[in-house]
Amino acid sequence: MKIIIAPDSFKGSASAPEVAVAIERGVKNALPQAETVLVPVADGGEGTMDSLVSATGGHFVEVTVKGPLQAPVQAAFGVLGDGVTCVIEMASASGLYLVSDAERDPLKATTYGTGELIKKALDDGYRRFILAIGGSATNDGGVGMLQALGLQVFDQQGAAVGYGGGVLDQIQQIDQSGWDPRIAKSEFLIASDVQNPLVGPDGASYVFGPQKGATPEMVKQLDHNLKHWADLVEREKGVRLHDLPGAGAAGGIGGAFQAFFPSEMKRGIDIVIEFTKLEEKMQGAHLVFTGEGQIDYQTASGKTPMGVAQAAQKQGIPVVVIAGSIGEGIDTLYQYGITSIHSLVNAPMSLEDAMTRAEELLEQRAEQIIRTAALLAPKV
Amino acid sequence: MKIIIAPDSFKGSASAPEVAVAIERGVKNALPQAETVLVPVADGGEGTMDSLVSATGGHFVEVTVKGPLQAPVQAAFGVLGDGVTCVIEMASASGLYLVSDAERDPLKATTYGTGELIKKALDDGYRRFILAIGGSATNDGGVGMLQALGLQVFDQQGAAVGYGGGVLDQIQQIDQSGWDPRIAKSEFLIASDVQNPLVGPDGASYVFGPQKGATPEMVKQLDHNLKHWADLVEREKGVRLHDLPGAGAAGGIGGAFQAFFPSEMKRGIDIVIEFTKLEEKMQGAHLVFTGEGQIDYQTASGKTPMGVAQAAQKQGIPVVVIAGSIGEGIDTLYQYGITSIHSLVNAPMSLEDAMTRAEELLEQRAEQIIRTAALLAPKV
Repeated sequence: MKIIIAPDSFKGSASAPEVAVAIERGVKNALPQAETVLVPVADGGEGTMDSLVSATGGHFVEVTVKGPLQAPVQAAFGVLGDGVTCVIEMASASGLYLVSDAERDPLKATTYGTGELIKKALDDGYRRFILAIGGSATNDGGVGMLQALGLQVFDQQGAAVGYGGGVLDQIQQIDQSGWDPRIAKSEFLIASDVQNPLVGPDGASYVFGPQKGATPEMVKQLDHNLKHWADLVEREKGVRLHDLPGAGAAGGIGGAFQAFFPSEMKRGIDIVIEFTKLEEKMQGAHLVFTGEGQIDYQTASGKTPMGVAQAAQKQGIPVVVIAGSIGEGIDTLYQYGITSIHSLVNAPMSLEDAMTRAEELLEQRAEQIIRTAALLAPKV
Repeated sequence: MKIIIAPDSFKGSASAPEVAVAIERGVKNALPQAETVLVPVADGGEGTMDSLVSATGGHFVEVTVKGPLQAPVQAAFGVLGDGVTCVIEMASASGLYLVSDAERDPLKATTYGTGELIKKALDDGYRRFILAIGGSATNDGGVGMLQALGLQVFDQQGAAVGYGGGVLDQIQQIDQSGWDPRIAKSEFLIASDVQNPLVGPDGASYVFGPQKGATPEMVKQLDHNLKHWADLVEREKGVRLHDLPGAGAAGGIGGAFQAFFPSEMKRGIDIVIEFTKLEEKMQGAHLVFTGEGQIDYQTASGKTPMGVAQAAQKQGIPVVVIAGSIGEGIDTLYQYGITSIHSLVNAPMSLEDAMTRAEELLEQRAEQIIRTAALLAPKV
């Protein structure tokens, strides 16, 4: 029996590779002769770079860059096993996790470090990029990244404008003369599930600003500043980001890619599935395991188990989900190829216990699922 | 697909019939065309009478009897669907649950009411009895029951001795002349998993006395009194109860049956399986569900899922267990015919939540188990 194990991470508890290995142990306990193929995945958010690099046998390149608040941070980009595709996780350079709760400040936070990562990869000769843009601390419209790549922005007096979403309204002039010419010869695949426009009530500032530390006052200012920036971009580049779906992703960096880069935006899980060659690996499989921390009706909106299930469904392979928690509305997931859904929790216990014991419980659950799946099966 | 649903109760949460119905709902959600056969079971403890009466389509007969502390209680015996077999649950007349925590007193508690139940059934013409003797409040060696059925016990002065384990040492003389002659013409099947002798460190008083409210002082006296009683029985009946396995069951009533009744003692779950005709009902089944509140290595010692699994194993039918909690050492259960083990809990939650939501969670779990079991199965 060939079994694909393609889970996401269980956030705060176990990484996707750890989850995959735990499930594999359970499978082997029940069926030692099973052929298991581990494909830890991610949905474009946290862990996407690790997932793609490990699935393709690639490697990492460490780079010291400006962090969200300009203090240097040790970031990294990944190079896939094909040797030519880079994967850049924005959070590595400009992530919210790099900033303490007290320091969160989207007026100041900049995407400059993300631009530096791209620049280093260009210097190393890479021209194919995957950008995973989840988890950012920023709301600067991606201007910091553009600055790192040679774009100059000036205020009314002709002085260079600094960093962060709080100063975008000072920009009166854009100078593209120093813009890195290698970008036009590259391809950028942007992994993002966010369809929000750049500005307005559904825009970056109003929807995602508060979780980055923005007060209601700051949200107003940030939205005003992004609108100012969008007006400038429209004048210079002829691209109207204001209402463009996806332009509001990751503090507006989505819009920067759309206006300044040869880029395409795709659902994160679809990119991961494509580059991990998950569908090829699934060929001839009898069963697919996937999983994430919480499963409910929201899983249908592009989360890992959904993408994995849709890929398996094309080949008629049943998909079993193991989650930490099962929430409401799971019946709606069957139509997308999910066959059955289980919790790793094996008794009444606290969330903390479940998270601490996740790997042991995943192993036990996977073992019991295989024992159950095999009970009516012909010998395979 | 034919599916047998044979769970025990989930104590404090759902009765065995409620558990069976919840599992059936889940099965039907996944597989509407499934043929389901519900056989709520019990292992000889609490719920045995209900289980046997409901599985055989029998009825109950209510009887007012002396409770453990002599206050009248409304008790009942069951008549199986065969119309000739009575099932008497000792706890109905002499159970610990009839006494408040503060009132617990094994020096005083008597089995008299259990004797009254038997007497009423004899009066009604029944001669075949199943006695479920778990959950008693008593430590009187079954003397109360014998008194209700005509045995007279006297002290040194020739005065009738009263009730309870505390006065057994006053008995100097047994008079069997009034002993109900119908007993000798009856059959008594005693459902008990207890192998303890009547007296000594493994006897009724030391092992079970404390949970009935006995202090260390009382335990000593109760054990001394049971020894005194056993000496008398040996003199009168030639049966040595002191070390006899099972004589220590239910405060020593096990010994009373062995000395005074035409009786046979069997594992509770085996009696339940026999009288519910579980093995006949299993014929041609593809899958058996069973379950109980907690499953762990101790389940192997005669609890419901074990008995059900052993019955199914004879016919090669896989058995799935749903429990509230999964404890340690479940691997040891596979050898007895258990195929896989699941918890109804579907997320981190408190014991109280799990108990309150047990039926809803059982339904969800059963549905997911069927979806999993069917995923590799040929269409059945």
